[in-house]
Amino acid sequence: MSILSRIQGPADVQALPHADLTALAQEIRQRLIEVTSRNGGHIGPNLGVVELTLGLHRVFNSPTDKFVFDVSHQGYVHKLLTGRNDAPFDKIRQSGGYSGFLARSESEHDAFGAGHAGTALSAALGMAIARDQQKEDNHVVAVLGDAAFTCGITLEALNNIDASTRRLIIILNDNEWSIAKNVGSLARYFNDIITNPVYNRIDRDLKSMLQKMPGGQSMLDFGRKWKRETKDFFVDSNFFETFGLRYIGPVDGHDIDAVIKHLEFAKASDRPILIHLMTQKGKGYEPALASPEKFHGLGPFDIETGLSPSGKGKSKALSYQDAFGKSLLKFAKTDASILGITAAMPPGTGLSWLRDAIPEQFFDVGIAEEHAVLFAAGLATQGMKPVVAIYSTFLQRAYDPIIHDICLQDLPVVFCMDRAGLSPNDGATHHGLFDIGYLRCVPNTIIMQPQDERELANMLWTSLQCPHPTFIRYPRGAGNGADINGDPEALEIGKAAVVKAGKDIQIWALGPWIQEALALSDSLEVELGLSIGVVNPRFIKPLDAELLQLQARDAELMVTMEDHVVTGGFGTAVLESLNEAGIHCPVERIGYPDHFIEHGSSVSDLRQLAGIDSDQLRERILKRFGHKPTKPGPSGSDKAHLRNPG
Amino acid sequence: MSILSRIQGPADVQALPHADLTALAQEIRQRLIEVTSRNGGHIGPNLGVVELTLGLHRVFNSPTDKFVFDVSHQGYVHKLLTGRNDAPFDKIRQSGGYSGFLARSESEHDAFGAGHAGTALSAALGMAIARDQQKEDNHVVAVLGDAAFTCGITLEALNNIDASTRRLIIILNDNEWSIAKNVGSLARYFNDIITNPVYNRIDRDLKSMLQKMPGGQSMLDFGRKWKRETKDFFVDSNFFETFGLRYIGPVDGHDIDAVIKHLEFAKASDRPILIHLMTQKGKGYEPALASPEKFHGLGPFDIETGLSPSGKGKSKALSYQDAFGKSLLKFAKTDASILGITAAMPPGTGLSWLRDAIPEQFFDVGIAEEHAVLFAAGLATQGMKPVVAIYSTFLQRAYDPIIHDICLQDLPVVFCMDRAGLSPNDGATHHGLFDIGYLRCVPNTIIMQPQDERELANMLWTSLQCPHPTFIRYPRGAGNGADINGDPEALEIGKAAVVKAGKDIQIWALGPWIQEALALSDSLEVELGLSIGVVNPRFIKPLDAELLQLQARDAELMVTMEDHVVTGGFGTAVLESLNEAGIHCPVERIGYPDHFIEHGSSVSDLRQLAGIDSDQLRERILKRFGHKPTKPGPSGSDKAHLRNPG
Repeated sequence: MSILSRIQGPADVQALPHADLTALAQEIRQRLIEVTSRNGGHIGPNLGVVELTLGLHRVFNSPTDKFVFDVSHQGYVHKLLTGRNDAPFDKIRQSGGYSGFLARSESEHDAFGAGHAGTALSAALGMAIARDQQKEDNHVVAVLGDAAFTCGITLEALNNIDASTRRLIIILNDNEWSIAKNVGSLARYFNDIITNPVYNRIDRDLKSMLQKMPGGQSMLDFGRKWKRETKDFFVDSNFFETFGLRYIGPVDGHDIDAVIKHLEFAKASDRPILIHLMTQKGKGYEPALASPEKFHGLGPFDIETGLSPSGKGKSKALSYQDAFGKSLLKFAKTDASILGITAAMPPGTGLSWLRDAIPEQFFDVGIAEEHAVLFAAGLATQGMKPVVAIYSTFLQRAYDPIIHDICLQDLPVVFCMDRAGLSPNDGATHHGLFDIGYLRCVPNTIIMQPQDERELANMLWTSLQCPHPTFIRYPRGAGNGADINGDPEALEIGKAAVVKAGKDIQIWALGPWIQEALALSDSLEVELGLSIGVVNPRFIKPLDAELLQLQARDAELMVTMEDHVVTGGFGTAVLESLNEAGIHCPVERIGYPDHFIEHGSSVSDLRQLAGIDSDQLRERILKRFGHKPTKPGPSGSDKAHLRNPG
Repeated sequence: MSILSRIQGPADVQALPHADLTALAQEIRQRLIEVTSRNGGHIGPNLGVVELTLGLHRVFNSPTDKFVFDVSHQGYVHKLLTGRNDAPFDKIRQSGGYSGFLARSESEHDAFGAGHAGTALSAALGMAIARDQQKEDNHVVAVLGDAAFTCGITLEALNNIDASTRRLIIILNDNEWSIAKNVGSLARYFNDIITNPVYNRIDRDLKSMLQKMPGGQSMLDFGRKWKRETKDFFVDSNFFETFGLRYIGPVDGHDIDAVIKHLEFAKASDRPILIHLMTQKGKGYEPALASPEKFHGLGPFDIETGLSPSGKGKSKALSYQDAFGKSLLKFAKTDASILGITAAMPPGTGLSWLRDAIPEQFFDVGIAEEHAVLFAAGLATQGMKPVVAIYSTFLQRAYDPIIHDICLQDLPVVFCMDRAGLSPNDGATHHGLFDIGYLRCVPNTIIMQPQDERELANMLWTSLQCPHPTFIRYPRGAGNGADINGDPEALEIGKAAVVKAGKDIQIWALGPWIQEALALSDSLEVELGLSIGVVNPRFIKPLDAELLQLQARDAELMVTMEDHVVTGGFGTAVLESLNEAGIHCPVERIGYPDHFIEHGSSVSDLRQLAGIDSDQLRERILKRFGHKPTKPGPSGSDKAHLRNPG
């Protein structure tokens, strides 16, 4: 029986003979590699925190002591040690399996859920203050990657610790990577610390060094006096000590004894403390060590080689992000004013195409979405053409700069929002289901969704000529295989395209829903003996009100389909437009309901749960249409009396 | 003729004899005090930057060189020096006058507009990169208050400068205040620098100090070697130098010669540089120096005494923020788990009541809205009852934490959103016109708006008992005078209140619109011979669908009124709900149109411009109702055929 299989919870970790820890670490790594090779997942980050997580559960008592993992994609080990080494772990990130992130709803040991970066320190500080106010004495430990320090929130939190509490433990899990290689001054600073340890050990080392030098002792006396006078000359020169943190490090994060020793020290600290651990993304698995960017998070892979399965069963179509990345590169080659901006996601967004070919037109600003958007605003004021590629869910973080800086000043910045819709394996924190809602209410926004890769290229081209802010949303994954190599075509702003003519029911379907609408239309036409049209709206704002009104005046029912919540979504825009025009045709709005959507194996799994798979759609439309005769009165007449299914 | 009256633009500042600068500064201060005493405005911050702004225009060439003022409420002096010392300046912040902030639409000298804090450094970096890419050689100067360093965005930007450009000038205008006294570790750090100048002059001073000491010379040699080895031991211990900035300071920001000398130095710098200026908020005006918090920004005041005009003409009703602040204090007194959190706005939000009475239940986190919300999330996980008071417009900055941390985890945090609706004198950057749009699409939100101060107290009480996230929006300024002293009443979630019974037209009016609706209802009833009801929805989400449907089945027209854009607003929620129920009654949605609303003297001025003053409303409703006979068919019948005003 393996050691891991005997771990039912933190108490078992604490009871384990010390000698077994290394073997347990080994077993955990095997389990991680085996499971993620089947399900995909964040293998690199998890392999890097095996000893750290073991140390945490050895030294502290969860759930009394609280661990807050930043992003929490590195929480697999924590799951294995907190009673979740069972069947759902085998299906992690799949339907019926555990989430790939921590979630308060999944375990009492998950003190705080996450999925976005930079939230841990603030949340942990809140927990520490709650503890202080309640006169409790539990520990709160925030585990942050170095990339979290590119996030403004982390720095905002850092600024608030010292004045607020005497007890907070921060683990800086430094692997020099966010998803891509880390960027910025702080990344360089952390590197300085590591490559030149004396830099941060001045206080400790200075004494012995000085004593060996001519005049050293008097210098030492002077230094002590000076330190007193300047409050913090020697020690507090450290970045973290500026924020009132005790800094300890760097420590080898794969030396389990060193990890435990330093965590014990932190536990006893009477002021906020940061332990700087050096870890390796992918530790213990050669292919992951060799390709840290790829193995940050990926789909299934072959354990032996680390290779992803070849084409079999995979779509040959370009992914939307590659269609975007290649198109942008093409346009940028002939226009030096086009600049691509990412917040630490070069491959995920497809901007790696630009980075690799024209690095001087590419900017990775770190996980700093607000800065990314404001930086683009500054560029746009000077005639540059910035293209900001941020996933729909992460763009939420830049909402104020979008309103206050981009839209209010009507600056021509192009936003490319990948992952608009579902990100099935990642789940609730990663779905992009709110962007229409939060962008449509803002003046000056132009919002689009393409029907395929070619239209994405056209929309990008159109946006680059447009003197206003533009937002293009498109889904994760493969497109339809449309050819993007032709010359781009400028689209007329606010003009929809009729995909299939019809009359009685008109379906306005966004992006991938167009295919679904066509299939449904065909089957319903036969069944009901009706004429059903399908429209590609292209523009969510401004809506093609002319076509919409023309169709709705004659139609019995309008149907909208979108990868977005129905509350405040595209269907709502249709409703608003018809109401303004005084046309009161029923609108069946297909989209996600007003609750958060969990993770699952596939889009179709999740659509079924949400009540919008093909069969459910068919039923809903039939029901909405149900009170009517198979053939309604003469078309064009006032049909309002037929409409109310109330 | 005064010197100031001869300044038509920056060239005149540059041509001025040096000897005239001090007198000009004096004239500017007089003009500032005179104009703001009549119009209100940000007098304190502007008095603090007179010499700085003079220096900028003396040393640099606007608009070729770009000045980016953070927040830009300190831009009055800049306006006076860039051709705007004319009639609209006399009406600054009023209808027909200049904005109280900088705006690209107002002058070519306003390189970047603002109103929210922390945006300048990112935008300036964008401009600097644009300059570099275009091989231009203009200067870009970002002017930041010390409070900007409590904003995550500023720190995100700071992390990106060094790797991006060799030329960027940052002015840290340090007056130790944001709006309230500044908070956090960096504020303390800045103070350390000031109170102990040697701390940051180590490199310069060390040499001479050491040379006077026994053994000093050998220490100096060692230090040089050490510095080389550790890259940046002595100098780069400074916080800013960690980010690759050259740091110069502190400099007396009211010594015009010193300011000019240091700006000239910065102009010649071959790497990014930060000049740390010490200034005084309110410099040159005794009442402002004596009360910096009050004189940050205020309404009209008496120049002699600094006192605000007494009651004459002022409402005796409590302001909404005081009603909130006093109610919260009352509840917090009997429940230690209630904590108030502000992002640098204790008086503005009304949280100063709590701060002054129970400081241990009060947290000012600095201008750090994201941290504020995440901090509250952490508190809520541990059973505390955090109340986050942030203006509607500033809550935009915490949108991702609201979705990803609060709502996804369904945490019971209470959000109190002051300034929901118009903030007339401040204008576009400060109106709170989007919060319904951006909150309603997020699952688990409960959104309310009270009809008066008493209902605000009830909603706060209701929210404190509610196990879900709650959002209470209310306007700037005085309420109706409703008594808040009684025992609070828990409201039923999602239940509206009929204010006035009616049948043919039903007006659902939010907050202050209820009074408008009642007046309109009375006048229209007489005119049309109809029965017009008025409803206080109380809950924007969940909507009282039962009452809504009941009324809409019988009504000819539904009218909604709200202080919000109509796109995606409360009226849209009504439309959605009716459409879901299959009731296709026309809905006349009254609110702000889909463009940004500028500043103006009053809510009524701005409503008129937006097409929604009382007369315009009357006309719109009559028009929407116009196609109908005075008395429609028997009530309760299917009236759909009467409805279409198409």
